[in-house]
Amino acid sequence: MESLTQAFGQATFPSPLKVSFQTENFIEDGKDRVLVDISLEGLLKASRPNSGHILFQPSTFELAGPREKIFWNPDSLKVAIVTCGGLAPGLNNVVQNLVTFLSDRYRVKHIYGVPYGYQGFTHDPLTKRFAFGWRRLDSLSVQNIDFEGGSVLGTGRGHSNPISIVDALMLRDINILFTIGGDGTLAGANAIHQEIKRRKVPISLIGIPKTIDNDVLWVSKTFGFESAVGKAVEALRCAQTEARSAYHGIGLVKIMGRNSGSLTATAAVAMNDIDFVLVPEVPLRLEGQNGLLNAIVRKVLDKGYITIAVAEGAGQDLFPPSEIEKDASGNEKLKDIGKYLQKLITDEFKARNIETTLKYIDPSYMLRSQTTSADDSVFCAKLGQNAVHAAMAGKTGCMIGYAHERFTHVPLSAVSMGKKRLDVNEPLWLSVLAATGQPSYWG
Amino acid sequence: MESLTQAFGQATFPSPLKVSFQTENFIEDGKDRVLVDISLEGLLKASRPNSGHILFQPSTFELAGPREKIFWNPDSLKVAIVTCGGLAPGLNNVVQNLVTFLSDRYRVKHIYGVPYGYQGFTHDPLTKRFAFGWRRLDSLSVQNIDFEGGSVLGTGRGHSNPISIVDALMLRDINILFTIGGDGTLAGANAIHQEIKRRKVPISLIGIPKTIDNDVLWVSKTFGFESAVGKAVEALRCAQTEARSAYHGIGLVKIMGRNSGSLTATAAVAMNDIDFVLVPEVPLRLEGQNGLLNAIVRKVLDKGYITIAVAEGAGQDLFPPSEIEKDASGNEKLKDIGKYLQKLITDEFKARNIETTLKYIDPSYMLRSQTTSADDSVFCAKLGQNAVHAAMAGKTGCMIGYAHERFTHVPLSAVSMGKKRLDVNEPLWLSVLAATGQPSYWG
Amino acid sequence: MESLTQAFGQATFPSPLKVSFQTENFIEDGKDRVLVDISLEGLLKASRPNSGHILFQPSTFELAGPREKIFWNPDSLKVAIVTCGGLAPGLNNVVQNLVTFLSDRYRVKHIYGVPYGYQGFTHDPLTKRFAFGWRRLDSLSVQNIDFEGGSVLGTGRGHSNPISIVDALMLRDINILFTIGGDGTLAGANAIHQEIKRRKVPISLIGIPKTIDNDVLWVSKTFGFESAVGKAVEALRCAQTEARSAYHGIGLVKIMGRNSGSLTATAAVAMNDIDFVLVPEVPLRLEGQNGLLNAIVRKVLDKGYITIAVAEGAGQDLFPPSEIEKDASGNEKLKDIGKYLQKLITDEFKARNIETTLKYIDPSYMLRSQTTSADDSVFCAKLGQNAVHAAMAGKTGCMIGYAHERFTHVPLSAVSMGKKRLDVNEPLWLSVLAATGQPSYWG
Amino acid sequence: MESLTQAFGQATFPSPLKVSFQTENFIEDGKDRVLVDISLEGLLKASRPNSGHILFQPSTFELAGPREKIFWNPDSLKVAIVTCGGLAPGLNNVVQNLVTFLSDRYRVKHIYGVPYGYQGFTHDPLTKRFAFGWRRLDSLSVQNIDFEGGSVLGTGRGHSNPISIVDALMLRDINILFTIGGDGTLAGANAIHQEIKRRKVPISLIGIPKTIDNDVLWVSKTFGFESAVGKAVEALRCAQTEARSAYHGIGLVKIMGRNSGSLTATAAVAMNDIDFVLVPEVPLRLEGQNGLLNAIVRKVLDKGYITIAVAEGAGQDLFPPSEIEKDASGNEKLKDIGKYLQKLITDEFKARNIETTLKYIDPSYMLRSQTTSADDSVFCAKLGQNAVHAAMAGKTGCMIGYAHERFTHVPLSAVSMGKKRLDVNEPLWLSVLAATGQPSYWG
Repeated sequence: MESLTQAFGQATFPSPLKVSFQTENFIEDGKDRVLVDISLEGLLKASRPNSGHILFQPSTFELAGPREKIFWNPDSLKVAIVTCGGLAPGLNNVVQNLVTFLSDRYRVKHIYGVPYGYQGFTHDPLTKRFAFGWRRLDSLSVQNIDFEGGSVLGTGRGHSNPISIVDALMLRDINILFTIGGDGTLAGANAIHQEIKRRKVPISLIGIPKTIDNDVLWVSKTFGFESAVGKAVEALRCAQTEARSAYHGIGLVKIMGRNSGSLTATAAVAMNDIDFVLVPEVPLRLEGQNGLLNAIVRKVLDKGYITIAVAEGAGQDLFPPSEIEKDASGNEKLKDIGKYLQKLITDEFKARNIETTLKYIDPSYMLRSQTTSADDSVFCAKLGQNAVHAAMAGKTGCMIGYAHERFTHVPLSAVSMGKKRLDVNEPLWLSVLAATGQPSYWG
Repeated sequence: MESLTQAFGQATFPSPLKVSFQTENFIEDGKDRVLVDISLEGLLKASRPNSGHILFQPSTFELAGPREKIFWNPDSLKVAIVTCGGLAPGLNNVVQNLVTFLSDRYRVKHIYGVPYGYQGFTHDPLTKRFAFGWRRLDSLSVQNIDFEGGSVLGTGRGHSNPISIVDALMLRDINILFTIGGDGTLAGANAIHQEIKRRKVPISLIGIPKTIDNDVLWVSKTFGFESAVGKAVEALRCAQTEARSAYHGIGLVKIMGRNSGSLTATAAVAMNDIDFVLVPEVPLRLEGQNGLLNAIVRKVLDKGYITIAVAEGAGQDLFPPSEIEKDASGNEKLKDIGKYLQKLITDEFKARNIETTLKYIDPSYMLRSQTTSADDSVFCAKLGQNAVHAAMAGKTGCMIGYAHERFTHVPLSAVSMGKKRLDVNEPLWLSVLAATGQPSYWG
Repeated sequence: MESLTQAFGQATFPSPLKVSFQTENFIEDGKDRVLVDISLEGLLKASRPNSGHILFQPSTFELAGPREKIFWNPDSLKVAIVTCGGLAPGLNNVVQNLVTFLSDRYRVKHIYGVPYGYQGFTHDPLTKRFAFGWRRLDSLSVQNIDFEGGSVLGTGRGHSNPISIVDALMLRDINILFTIGGDGTLAGANAIHQEIKRRKVPISLIGIPKTIDNDVLWVSKTFGFESAVGKAVEALRCAQTEARSAYHGIGLVKIMGRNSGSLTATAAVAMNDIDFVLVPEVPLRLEGQNGLLNAIVRKVLDKGYITIAVAEGAGQDLFPPSEIEKDASGNEKLKDIGKYLQKLITDEFKARNIETTLKYIDPSYMLRSQTTSADDSVFCAKLGQNAVHAAMAGKTGCMIGYAHERFTHVPLSAVSMGKKRLDVNEPLWLSVLAATGQPSYWG
Repeated sequence: MESLTQAFGQATFPSPLKVSFQTENFIEDGKDRVLVDISLEGLLKASRPNSGHILFQPSTFELAGPREKIFWNPDSLKVAIVTCGGLAPGLNNVVQNLVTFLSDRYRVKHIYGVPYGYQGFTHDPLTKRFAFGWRRLDSLSVQNIDFEGGSVLGTGRGHSNPISIVDALMLRDINILFTIGGDGTLAGANAIHQEIKRRKVPISLIGIPKTIDNDVLWVSKTFGFESAVGKAVEALRCAQTEARSAYHGIGLVKIMGRNSGSLTATAAVAMNDIDFVLVPEVPLRLEGQNGLLNAIVRKVLDKGYITIAVAEGAGQDLFPPSEIEKDASGNEKLKDIGKYLQKLITDEFKARNIETTLKYIDPSYMLRSQTTSADDSVFCAKLGQNAVHAAMAGKTGCMIGYAHERFTHVPLSAVSMGKKRLDVNEPLWLSVLAATGQPSYWG
């Protein structure tokens, strides 16, 4: 784990938490680590002769939490917080917890909110004027921001320019930067961290993973995910209600998830009586005896009504490559699989001369712009607290990870190893197969 | 008010409610009537010499409620309930209240649910076989149906054939039919009622108005409307959150309402800080100095973000007539004004070279397939109770109306006089103008 | 209707709303009035020879709404807002609407929040120092206060001293005072208004009725009532669930309502399957063949489980007068009828040797400290808007009333005529009797 | 892990899940185990020479999930389900998932619900008559039971008589019994399991842990806990609102938790701005410089208002032993710490002559009788599925555990080792200390 203590000397300040904490409550860096793979099989593999070292790296992570000695002197500390990318329920909770923790527990006096994501660092190197005003934050100004969805700081998708951003941090004398964002943001954060190291300046950079799709590596859940599941369930229930209330009714819901069907699958398991769950990880085949369309017709005739949950990233290979467009950032624009299925299914029933009523619901941004469930609030509080503990202890270049019910420090370099997807051999997908009775592959 | 007592003799059975009610609580037909127009101006007009009779008809409606004597002997009574048209929150509550009231208070033993709307009467006149099974209903079978959205009976849009339906009612010895539906359904109910009268058979037909758009005449509110407003507010809040969290953010929400902007306007008033409300009743002009697009650009630049609520029926005249399609029933298919505005606004900002982020939300069926708010539950309970009181007293050919906080009996013939729309001179729309600051007309 | 125009000259400033409103949308004082009693019977009585004048006064109220000419020049206007008494959902919505309307529509620049109710006017007449700081309010500072329950201004029960309060208003150059509160507060407001008149100073005082119990005269509903009903229904549903899940289960819920059973009755009607509803308006008799205890035992044995809703003010005469205590303000402290019934019922079953499980729920302040339902938000918006219209037009000494779906101006003197209670001959209570099957009186 | 295969021969029936699952998805008994302690420290300790065997037992649990071969032939199988003890959100979801899984996936045809807990097994050994009718369950009869709180089977606290219960199971030819309940119920289940073993009859008994207090060993979370947290947060928010809206306001909420402060602590962490969290695990001292009362007064004066969350089991040692009563089952009745604190705090402020307003909320059963959050629904689904997989594979005498995000099989004998409590050295309590700033001990 990278730490400013490696280059700039020991953490020597006693933690202000000592007043209320007893000594044994603090985490010890060397000692407190947790396994990445907790299966017996993984363990046996790791502990074979000549592979013992694998046991420690990368197969354990440093445990997050308060340290007895801290690196920074709170009095003169300057902290910046930035939220990047799309919305997720809980952004404000995380910001609120960062701010109240820094100010109420660690007595930090200078905290700034950077507006509209990495764009907020934009400045003219000559005049040193910033394009957007930074906002001063304290306990009072964030008191009720958890009652609102979105990000009170403003967020944005703009690309990061590490050199310009480190310039901005130095111009403003920032000691700690918290970046809240998804895998793109965290890759950007890693680049900023490398630039900070290159310049040999003492700035802690701590990432906090945010992804409504739950597709960041090394974190088993992300804030806002559960709240999004709640709203997806609501949309599914509405579609199910429409289907049940009509003769040969079909309810179809499109749910967020470009690369991962995690949200769609979880929402479907939360419900009773969902019939088809379509995710990017399982190729979609429509035609033929064992294709989706035939399965749908059969089930409608057999059961009277059905409900379908489709992740927005599902079935993208059904569209001819010529139709693929790219957005400004070069990402492929997804084709609308929901509308596409709506038309295909309706046409199929018409062709077979079977009466049906299909209702299509696309809750889209309603999943991500709401406030948090109680459980998500707890998760955001812990994330924020652990990020503050990490930064105050001088940790840097890491993200607050979560796995096996433990918060950890995950090197930012490990985060960019890839994107987490739904594993079709794992319990969640098996629960979906078991709950729906649908086949494990189509066609 | 039409009543079976006119043709078939007096209501002679004492109401079973006498056990718990005291005598003075019952409504007296001749005496208890309420004014249609409660303004002083309307009253003075009505009470001018030689116009006194206008005062009574049609400017008062009979008050709904329990009568001391009832027309039907509950013991042998057979009752049918049918739900028609699209879903609205509260359908199950109304059915539940009809059933528990009939069975627990009036001791009616034979109650049937007719499935899938008027389709449920379909039968073969020769074999007397019905296409769909009717469902026996009692207090236990409807105990928790208010926990679900939709209609447990099933609903459908099929046209009514009065002759066939009255045949079906007679085949099944039905004495009372409750039809729950919108203006189309109620027009159908009137035709059935005329056929019943023509045949001189003692069958009570009571309509219960259902319209998520709140566009039925003589009812100031309809069941499910408030619940739908609640969900529309949720969608608006999400759009507002997206807009506030982005630089030059725009949130756009499309809300149900083919002919009436009532739902859209009410939801907008429930919110703070909505900027534009677009309804079918106010012609939409996009171009020019005083057009919508210019107003939007100005407000985004001035305020930083905006939120727009658009009723699905708004701005339909913007589409070339050649593009208009009709559905199976001959109704014009609405063009998607939401998607259209999304494109127009985005293009306008691009043309003016102003950065913006527009998020479009279409909550569609989520507004109508949910369960009821507490207040809607109360309203459904009272509607159901008053419908049962009316039927048991021998009333027929009427709908349960609601105006000025009173439930009334409204002749079905009066219902088909027209469709209620939003009055742009009335308080609701003035509240919208005052809350948004938008002009009273475009262009 | 009292108006500052009577003493200080005509309303001559054109309404700033003219920009968006068209002329015909404005209310005309003489012309637009609505009937207090809308029944035909009431009307006939009022229009009998020699009683025609009764028709106009007091049987009509002036219609609330925007006037074309306003009395005040917005530029220099100073406005104060005070919230008094206990909490109700929507206090913040009303404050928010007052502020945004005053500032965004009428361009008023100086708006102050008075803290902790009438206490907030406390000042030293010599030093002119105020005990509590007043808070400056504008559109931005109230932007999200509707996301919180309670009152951001703070509220309090302190008595009003009209002389000191008018002194305070004059010290601070206040032109308009909005007081939001219940019947005590409004009586206080009337005393302040009389003192203002006595001093012949041009200050508009507009009251906004607030009562979670719905017991203010001339208003058919009050803000927060529906939201409170929603939470009461939740508590009832929990009690019902506990009852249904246990052998011979009894669920008992105590609901707010010192003098009026309106909240309890409304919540009970919203539910299916409530068995007993106990309110202050119907004397409670426990013992004997037709007493409550016997009815409870019979229904538990017959049906298997029951749910009871009791208003906190019900059955107070069951307690010996010697036990009555008074609080600081001289009001009688209510005895806890919920706990009392819990013990009595448990003992009764024990005495009869019948197994039972009784679960008691007292949601208390949870009914009043929450945020608003969508419908309540709409109501608060309209209340706030109409209060601002009234004040700007120079109206004074009045409360914004609501009856028969119209907002009105009700003289404060008429408000103190009495307290509204549940009328046991009215539809609401009849719905309760019909829904529960309980007798109209006990014993 | 105990399994019927040990005594009655191999699991030879192919799993009906093979149709939709692919072979590699099934769990292998010997291979798939997970660590109980996932810290590196624990691991090193376990893998020291001569202690290697500890690694496998008890420090790993068998992984739950579907097996490729099953023990039971579904055709003739008879299954019983019983819910015991107090309510928890999700009881119906678990029952629903057991039933739909058994019937839709494993094609089990005979499933019975045993009413009112272990009482439902009561029968006359001579006449073989059962005191309560068992209810036949299938997919349709449980379709919407997750829309209701409580247990549709009925639940009860009655003691278990293992001999009589095994008699009942054999009389009814039951092959699998699912018991859903807390530690008492699971201890009872273990006794039943021992009796089954003694009789050498092939009956699978699978326990499903239920505890709103989250105090069962080997399960890091229990169903309904998150939903209860959600409601506790609501109560805390109401109390906080009351406190903020009053001068020197104090909000006090009592939250379920006889032995564990887990629910109280979690709810407090979900909130911003809670001041005191009182749990059974931390002794309460009221008096003195470092006592609670002094801390409360200081914070009210300093901050203006405070919010206190107290677990019902906190501070029980403050009551004189003479006051302790026992209930029918011999458990000590908790004294009402909420009411007690309310009086003490009010008196303290009175004694110090400081104005205050204290509002006390006891949401009690509202925490446990509601329906589930989406996340709890997912958890219930997985619990139910894994219980069915375990039973069908012939597992017995075990409970479905959950730790480190994995479902496991935990021997019932291990469950009765003790009761889980809040560890004041663990992250959750440290989060509470950090969030509130309260000291780690009182006095």
